[in-house]
Amino acid sequence: MALRKLQVGVAGLGRMGKRHALNFFQSVPRAELVAVSSPDAEEREWASKTLGPSGVTVYESYDAMLQHKGLDAVCVASATTVHASQAIKAIEAGKNVLCEKPLATTAKVSQTVVDAAATRPDLKVMCGFSRRFDEHYRNAHAKMSRGDIGRPSVFRSQTCDMLDPSGFLVAYAEFSGGIFVDCSIHDVDLALWFFREEDDAKVRSVSAVGITAVEPGLCRYDDRDNAMGLVEFADGRIAHLYSSRMMAAGQDDATEIIGTRGKLSVNSLPAANLVRVYEAGGMRQEVPQNYWDRFKNAFAREAVEFTDCCLDDTEVPVKLTTAVAAVRIAAALQQSMITGEKIWFNQLGQQAIKAQL
Amino acid sequence: MALRKLQVGVAGLGRMGKRHALNFFQSVPRAELVAVSSPDAEEREWASKTLGPSGVTVYESYDAMLQHKGLDAVCVASATTVHASQAIKAIEAGKNVLCEKPLATTAKVSQTVVDAAATRPDLKVMCGFSRRFDEHYRNAHAKMSRGDIGRPSVFRSQTCDMLDPSGFLVAYAEFSGGIFVDCSIHDVDLALWFFREEDDAKVRSVSAVGITAVEPGLCRYDDRDNAMGLVEFADGRIAHLYSSRMMAAGQDDATEIIGTRGKLSVNSLPAANLVRVYEAGGMRQEVPQNYWDRFKNAFAREAVEFTDCCLDDTEVPVKLTTAVAAVRIAAALQQSMITGEKIWFNQLGQQAIKAQL
Amino acid sequence: MALRKLQVGVAGLGRMGKRHALNFFQSVPRAELVAVSSPDAEEREWASKTLGPSGVTVYESYDAMLQHKGLDAVCVASATTVHASQAIKAIEAGKNVLCEKPLATTAKVSQTVVDAAATRPDLKVMCGFSRRFDEHYRNAHAKMSRGDIGRPSVFRSQTCDMLDPSGFLVAYAEFSGGIFVDCSIHDVDLALWFFREEDDAKVRSVSAVGITAVEPGLCRYDDRDNAMGLVEFADGRIAHLYSSRMMAAGQDDATEIIGTRGKLSVNSLPAANLVRVYEAGGMRQEVPQNYWDRFKNAFAREAVEFTDCCLDDTEVPVKLTTAVAAVRIAAALQQSMITGEKIWFNQLGQQAIKAQL
Amino acid sequence: MALRKLQVGVAGLGRMGKRHALNFFQSVPRAELVAVSSPDAEEREWASKTLGPSGVTVYESYDAMLQHKGLDAVCVASATTVHASQAIKAIEAGKNVLCEKPLATTAKVSQTVVDAAATRPDLKVMCGFSRRFDEHYRNAHAKMSRGDIGRPSVFRSQTCDMLDPSGFLVAYAEFSGGIFVDCSIHDVDLALWFFREEDDAKVRSVSAVGITAVEPGLCRYDDRDNAMGLVEFADGRIAHLYSSRMMAAGQDDATEIIGTRGKLSVNSLPAANLVRVYEAGGMRQEVPQNYWDRFKNAFAREAVEFTDCCLDDTEVPVKLTTAVAAVRIAAALQQSMITGEKIWFNQLGQQAIKAQL
Repeated sequence: MALRKLQVGVAGLGRMGKRHALNFFQSVPRAELVAVSSPDAEEREWASKTLGPSGVTVYESYDAMLQHKGLDAVCVASATTVHASQAIKAIEAGKNVLCEKPLATTAKVSQTVVDAAATRPDLKVMCGFSRRFDEHYRNAHAKMSRGDIGRPSVFRSQTCDMLDPSGFLVAYAEFSGGIFVDCSIHDVDLALWFFREEDDAKVRSVSAVGITAVEPGLCRYDDRDNAMGLVEFADGRIAHLYSSRMMAAGQDDATEIIGTRGKLSVNSLPAANLVRVYEAGGMRQEVPQNYWDRFKNAFAREAVEFTDCCLDDTEVPVKLTTAVAAVRIAAALQQSMITGEKIWFNQLGQQAIKAQL
Repeated sequence: MALRKLQVGVAGLGRMGKRHALNFFQSVPRAELVAVSSPDAEEREWASKTLGPSGVTVYESYDAMLQHKGLDAVCVASATTVHASQAIKAIEAGKNVLCEKPLATTAKVSQTVVDAAATRPDLKVMCGFSRRFDEHYRNAHAKMSRGDIGRPSVFRSQTCDMLDPSGFLVAYAEFSGGIFVDCSIHDVDLALWFFREEDDAKVRSVSAVGITAVEPGLCRYDDRDNAMGLVEFADGRIAHLYSSRMMAAGQDDATEIIGTRGKLSVNSLPAANLVRVYEAGGMRQEVPQNYWDRFKNAFAREAVEFTDCCLDDTEVPVKLTTAVAAVRIAAALQQSMITGEKIWFNQLGQQAIKAQL
Repeated sequence: MALRKLQVGVAGLGRMGKRHALNFFQSVPRAELVAVSSPDAEEREWASKTLGPSGVTVYESYDAMLQHKGLDAVCVASATTVHASQAIKAIEAGKNVLCEKPLATTAKVSQTVVDAAATRPDLKVMCGFSRRFDEHYRNAHAKMSRGDIGRPSVFRSQTCDMLDPSGFLVAYAEFSGGIFVDCSIHDVDLALWFFREEDDAKVRSVSAVGITAVEPGLCRYDDRDNAMGLVEFADGRIAHLYSSRMMAAGQDDATEIIGTRGKLSVNSLPAANLVRVYEAGGMRQEVPQNYWDRFKNAFAREAVEFTDCCLDDTEVPVKLTTAVAAVRIAAALQQSMITGEKIWFNQLGQQAIKAQL
Repeated sequence: MALRKLQVGVAGLGRMGKRHALNFFQSVPRAELVAVSSPDAEEREWASKTLGPSGVTVYESYDAMLQHKGLDAVCVASATTVHASQAIKAIEAGKNVLCEKPLATTAKVSQTVVDAAATRPDLKVMCGFSRRFDEHYRNAHAKMSRGDIGRPSVFRSQTCDMLDPSGFLVAYAEFSGGIFVDCSIHDVDLALWFFREEDDAKVRSVSAVGITAVEPGLCRYDDRDNAMGLVEFADGRIAHLYSSRMMAAGQDDATEIIGTRGKLSVNSLPAANLVRVYEAGGMRQEVPQNYWDRFKNAFAREAVEFTDCCLDDTEVPVKLTTAVAAVRIAAALQQSMITGEKIWFNQLGQQAIKAQL
């Protein structure tokens, strides 16, 4: 007797799409990867070779994949620009959805996914903020939640990628929404989670600065390679975010939550493994080379828990509305960085000119 | 179309047996857990509830399980005293075997498994030295192998368990073979691996001391709760081993390999996670509470690679003969600790009185 | 034959004054502490008992101490409010001056000390930014200066004090100039030093936020207990500063300098000593309890080098003008935090309304 | 009014002699360096230039220095071979003595210093085990003494020097007493201190092994470049010692004290400073290059406390008899390493053949 497994299709087979596909293929005992789709011939060839022999159907058209018989759920891992439309189509087709972050590069478009999901309360629709599934962040959140550090008041977090000297960054910036929307959105989401502002983020103001230290071409798309922001919440809490695309050693994603009676830090010393090398010059530790090295277990966990909530009809572990709030804040930070203006929010969470407050 | 999967049975459903069973059940995509066996009714009940609904057959008799139709491989995770006999029965029944360490508490009995395996070169027979599958040890071994530290010359390693105040240790000692055979055998195996002495361990002498700092009752079974040994290899290399059963903070398994041009350390600062807690009293990091916390990924990897070598007919990743050499050295250390005598080996690797050298 | 020693007087015998006095008394071989002054009777009694027997004269009046025969130099370690006036008096009396930071809580008053010093180029006048004398910061600065991290572009630094639950903080805030001027000024000075903006700090804008998480009373004096700021330099560099007065574990002063080819961190894991305690609950390291625990060697080095430059007629190790630039930036951050406005500077380094840029 | 200062002479101006001389010259407020002696012309020239101008008399003859008018104390920092004879001469001349470790390379000769000191209970005679004055070891010892780790039962310590590729090691080995007497003696002293066996070290057995991994020439003088030993105390405690002269990264001196309720480690991750360098290849920390980098503050403290006990007539902080016990154990380890024999001690602390126990 075999238990029922969730029949999953993955849309998009780029860097992240491949990883999500392999996760559902190998690392989720209760899921069965039955279909994948990609408009890219090379990606489909990879899938045919790697997944085809095990019976996974490879589609060129996303819409065609949605018609795959028995399909229960879709993982949207395509380009950011189509996240929202693909997610909405899947909802309309009655599929559960795990959508890569961000839902869209604006809060407005992101909200359309929330609105679509609201029409189908029977479906599970989740935006994949992978750090929520990382055991270390969860450990810190649990400690905070049981009161170990008093009232969490200051949040500092960074998403720092290793420098990619290929120039890819510039092309990528055209559609990414910018460094705050693409990178810091993880830190914004964590801030909302740790400050318990997920339902109703009461932000008062944001301000940001940025530079192009290694990729001046980013200015063309109103982006920067290093950016720092401040977020002021309405209830006496503050957050600092830092994103960079020029780390020399590797991925350096660290977070601090500072409370009235203690501080928690997560990954303040990035290390790829438990090996220390003592050699002429000193002691050396390798650093993860990219976010996958750091978070691959979290992505697997995300897929497992998404599958569980679909099969068991339990709540999704990350509320969909948070994704809208996170994009709203990240996009405001991006705007502040480019315009130089501090941006204020009114009590309804809308951007406002200060005079209106 | 489904690819052929390795049909696996697990013998023994105690602490480790359960873990092996769940690993083959959930974490090995190319394996299918089809049967388990245990003489213990409570353990069988656990299996019936947890694994039965998915079609796993639960046997009381190991011999009966060996007759399970289509069974390809057996994982022997029962009490140490029956490791060898169960492994040999499985070999005789034509099954591939993954046997928990140690094969037996003496080199002589361990050798009977090697002899049985020699009669069936078509089968894969492996002793599960889990640390060989740990990514961190592998990383260090790869660095050493490519020459990063020159010639490895000094090896220091420890297996330190958290104190179990229940008194269980004393009962356990009756059959464990003693602290060197039960704990330090991992470090001995690592020494052989890092010193490339796996085929033919040329040990010159061993000496050891031990104390009962917290469990005087261990003396009844010629055992100790803290033990330290020195191993002298014939080719100018030395090793220090330390085992303890009284750690207050948790599992503390660290290793150093010191070469002529550098040093590698593995896990010199044990940490359960990437969280640091700053509180009155200072900064605190949690420590793994047991070897499973530290090595669970390695056990999963072990099951995956054992499965791969069975299905693909490739070499087992850990040579079976190493298991005999490791027990020989560990048992000599135990003997040295109890008798107070330094023990010498002759050029054939046999224990010798010094005059015979 | 004895070499000539610098005859030093210390003004102020509060917490820092005592420490400076003892430093010149014990830890500076080329200096001789000859006089101290304090308007506080208790402090003078301490000095009479501790230093009197060794021949140090204890004055009530600062002006009287300035008349002490043979006095070469004055260390101004009194309340911040009199730093500038005492420093100027000393200069007018022809004494070399080591003045505790800040010179004053405004750039304008700070500048009066610079102006006074300019009239006596024969005298050494230095503001004591202790971190410049810390061996660890110097090590990082030397690595940066020789190009190890490429062009330094992003600077992040924090001054986080242990919570003093006595309420003293509120009274102290009345005269301290506020958390940015009192604490972050160290980080601002470091930013100027690492960005080589000491001669002519070209700041474009500053913005800041702050909260009172533990001491609401601070609002009375327009101060906060946690504050974070962003500083944008005119040449494509940015800095983040964080100050706190509520650390649970102890003093936590860390700094990162991020360049185009690498990153340097200083003290990212605060530790009071090299001892690790493994106990139930994990591994614990103590944290320095205050800035003196962390920087006492730097203060001694500061006294030694100030003495050297006076005796050898060499340049002061920290330019006096930097102290004005640091206060200007810190005071602007404080203003931004209180008003909520982002503050812009024009090309002359003056605060400006944005329209004027 | 000047307080009386201890008039100190330093014998020997080699590497350590220079450092002791400079310490008494600069870092001990209550001492005055008045004389130094060395048979080496170059060393005397250094002293004449460096210390002469400040009034320090430079002697060729140690005996002549002992006649220096007003001399209160002698610091013996000459070659190990003359430590004992110079210390005894100083005692006979009525001088307090701080003697570098070891008193001699044998317990027998070391004892002659103790015997001489016994004839002059009015004098302070101390052997300089510098680690006893290190703040980190003291912190650990204080924690242990107040019971933080229960009963200390297992001790592990290492003295690992950076490789000196000049070949100097071989020449040095002729007189050093060997690696255990020269290096591990520090660890043996610490073991006695932490196990409170200073008055009456009840050792049961020692055994040791060693290799020449980088300096085969050491065999000529019965020495090794890497050595490990086990020491068994009579009361159920054990110690492991490791010494090496081939570290690639730098000085690596670490210690663990493991008790029934916790573990203390000192310096388990050697670091020269608080700077971390993130660069291609990972995160790197520099390591102290020699024991002076690691222990210079301890040597200064040693000089200060020796001075204090002389001036204040208080007990010396390290008992002289410990120095004899430490040499006895270290020399037995050296003997065990060379002969291959385990060495037993009888209840009087004398080496014994096992039959006699």
